[in-house]
Amino acid sequence: MFGVHEHVGGEDGAILPAISKKGLKIMSVNLLTDSETDPIIWRGPLIAGAVKQFWTDVLWGDMDYMFIDMPPGTGDVPLTVFQSIPVDGIVIVTSPQELVGMIAEKAVKMANMMNIPVLGLVENMSYAVCPNCGEKLPVFGESHIEEIAGKYKISNLAQLPIDSKLARACDLGEIEEYETVLLDEIFANL
Amino acid sequence: MFGVHEHVGGEDGAILPAISKKGLKIMSVNLLTDSETDPIIWRGPLIAGAVKQFWTDVLWGDMDYMFIDMPPGTGDVPLTVFQSIPVDGIVIVTSPQELVGMIAEKAVKMANMMNIPVLGLVENMSYAVCPNCGEKLPVFGESHIEEIAGKYKISNLAQLPIDSKLARACDLGEIEEYETVLLDEIFANL
Repeated sequence: MFGVHEHVGGEDGAILPAISKKGLKIMSVNLLTDSETDPIIWRGPLIAGAVKQFWTDVLWGDMDYMFIDMPPGTGDVPLTVFQSIPVDGIVIVTSPQELVGMIAEKAVKMANMMNIPVLGLVENMSYAVCPNCGEKLPVFGESHIEEIAGKYKISNLAQLPIDSKLARACDLGEIEEYETVLLDEIFANL
Repeated sequence: MFGVHEHVGGEDGAILPAISKKGLKIMSVNLLTDSETDPIIWRGPLIAGAVKQFWTDVLWGDMDYMFIDMPPGTGDVPLTVFQSIPVDGIVIVTSPQELVGMIAEKAVKMANMMNIPVLGLVENMSYAVCPNCGEKLPVFGESHIEEIAGKYKISNLAQLPIDSKLARACDLGEIEEYETVLLDEIFANL
């Protein structure tokens, strides 16, 4: 998404993060493999070890904010992040389908059980807009975000449409060039 | 999706699968929890144990076909499935976005490394159709399925549109009622 494809290097046993075009420091297991399409066939303990090392062994330097993008579910990665990194809170990303809402509820409950503050919910792929006639299409059904937000008393930060311009920006490695008023909306609600 | 919400029971140390309205036998960790929204906060070894037990301890009886739905990625679940269950092959599900294509390539390579036949690729969320004007919208960008299928010499089984009727059938637990000519297309290509 950031157009970062280099192999990251090290210095005195520490790992130097990759730097995006606009200066963001980035670390991913993908930056350690010989080829980007090589699978990382790791069992949980190795995955947990990598998560911890990214926190302890990467030379992050002074940072205002760090975002940790986690896989869906409530497995090894979130468990390790919640247990070994002093996160200030999590943002839960969901989509309108009811089954996805059930998964989001699991994530909220996991965070509550582990005393991790939930900063809010974001609903992704809320609707598409037809570029031909402007019709707003609820392609994955009606939203359940207000329901979940109300049930667990957390903020509904934003409902993001499916935007082919965003998909294209990601594919081109130009996510940093993507502009939307929706980001301002999210930060205003945080 | 199948409208199955019961708690599954046991018999002489074995687990009885849930039965869908049309008679499919179903097993999921979700059918073992007290509440469907309870998170399963398990590390890899426990997850791997559950996968193996679903194979060895569930009274499946005589079956013509068994489908194992796996989470995205190349972690504990596919690794355990490939190592402990004699699968005939896998179907890899992707979507048009280039980054998803990269993840699909990882799955193909993992299957090749473990000598698991890849039966084919299915591209999900290929496009949406505007119900108002009929315009076909490539909401996640242009497809890369032919490229991946060609590169690894595997079949491109089908490109499935985003269909709000399917989303609705899943939410209502009526996936078995959903009919589409696309299923015939997939089986014809298999």
